[in-house]
Amino acid sequence: MKIAIVGVGMIGGAVARAARGLSGVQEIVGIEPLASHAAQALELGLVDIVASEVPADADLVVLAAPNEQLPDWVVTLRDHAGVVMDVGSVKGYIVREVRRRLGETPANFVPCHPLAGSEKHGPANAPGDLFRNRLVIVLPQRASSAAAVRRARAFWSGLGAILHEMDIDTHDRTLAATSHLPHLLAFAFMCSIRDEDLRYSGGGFADFSRIAASSPELWWGIFRLNREELLQALDGFQNQVDALRAALVTDAEADGLALLAEAAGRRRQL
Amino acid sequence: MKIAIVGVGMIGGAVARAARGLSGVQEIVGIEPLASHAAQALELGLVDIVASEVPADADLVVLAAPNEQLPDWVVTLRDHAGVVMDVGSVKGYIVREVRRRLGETPANFVPCHPLAGSEKHGPANAPGDLFRNRLVIVLPQRASSAAAVRRARAFWSGLGAILHEMDIDTHDRTLAATSHLPHLLAFAFMCSIRDEDLRYSGGGFADFSRIAASSPELWWGIFRLNREELLQALDGFQNQVDALRAALVTDAEADGLALLAEAAGRRRQL
Repeated sequence: MKIAIVGVGMIGGAVARAARGLSGVQEIVGIEPLASHAAQALELGLVDIVASEVPADADLVVLAAPNEQLPDWVVTLRDHAGVVMDVGSVKGYIVREVRRRLGETPANFVPCHPLAGSEKHGPANAPGDLFRNRLVIVLPQRASSAAAVRRARAFWSGLGAILHEMDIDTHDRTLAATSHLPHLLAFAFMCSIRDEDLRYSGGGFADFSRIAASSPELWWGIFRLNREELLQALDGFQNQVDALRAALVTDAEADGLALLAEAAGRRRQL
Repeated sequence: MKIAIVGVGMIGGAVARAARGLSGVQEIVGIEPLASHAAQALELGLVDIVASEVPADADLVVLAAPNEQLPDWVVTLRDHAGVVMDVGSVKGYIVREVRRRLGETPANFVPCHPLAGSEKHGPANAPGDLFRNRLVIVLPQRASSAAAVRRARAFWSGLGAILHEMDIDTHDRTLAATSHLPHLLAFAFMCSIRDEDLRYSGGGFADFSRIAASSPELWWGIFRLNREELLQALDGFQNQVDALRAALVTDAEADGLALLAEAAGRRRQL
């Protein structure tokens, strides 16, 4: 099996590293325009070769390029003989843009989203076993071939992931709430902190704000590409903040305690 | 040295556990009205005995009771021969209430705040070495005796903590921003999450929301007791959320990226 990985940053690098452990994988080809990432990926042995184009004989093409570029790649590879999977955080804009240009998504294309990541970036930060026991959402399209979906699922299963199928709208709404919103809030929180207060941060602060160290470019892209769902999730959050603020201002203990208990109860389910 | 600990929950239990390692500590007495906590603290060997009152011959009294009860304890122990320290998260209301009742804070009283904790509670969850290399804020009052301040500092130093002095107003404003605000936001965030979305939480979600599993009673108390400072910190956060929202709605990439870069840069300083 020959695997091509478009974009060998942290996630692409982690896919490469994990795929090394799969039986039958003979060659991993990286497509990476950033010279420093390309050199690192080669040096670390994540990829066997760096190419400027996806080889025609690749069995699997993993698109881990910046989100904005994914529709272009799907269109470019529409007739590729291998299976094409993206690993992006937002799905609706890809499918809409590809359909606008091609009328339908290609049969070889299976959108995927591994719920695994890190605030770090670059292939040097690619963890060795990022996908084991982590959820990978597979989003087969009506035009996706059954064989392509089967191979996509088999690939992630081989990396130890737990598979879950979802439709595009549910995905973008769910991820807005569970991932994009907390990132936006953590960024806003860190903007509100004074530099001189940083030294008084305890473990709660550190965990709460960890994701605010994530790449601004990556996350601005995600926020934009999932804007409507993110704004809806933000409205939902804002309602809860307003309710808590009102309870605090009016010293309404029963209301305040009920809100905190609801939150704590839900969090303890995790 | 005999140490009395009023309230042997998670923090009081951690103080007891850590104090066991100090040379010269002969007896640790717990004052704990909650029968289950008292029994656990004895069983775990955190305290040697559970008493209903603070022994007159205690050299050090650590007040780790619920925040609301701290002013009462300081007033009750105003003539105690030992050093009295609280470990509460808010300070202004204690000092104001004690001054209102006594005219001045007692000479034996040294407010302290170890910046260490956990979302868990109860003595069974008391970590063994909670204070090593953690910041403990010591807040000597104008009426605190030099000897009391010296003994308070020596105690925390003995537990491996890093000491920092601060005035009450700076403490309450700083902690509102670095601790109370993220707790409020994490609680509000968890209120806004649908139960069915919980299974799609990744590592970012888990870290961001961890503190929302904290005790509702404890945190409602902290929010109330530091209400004015917390509302100010919340206003500052709200301004940043509004700026991010505006950038998103108008697709103002330069503004959005600048906000995210400021947040990421500050977080990476940690």
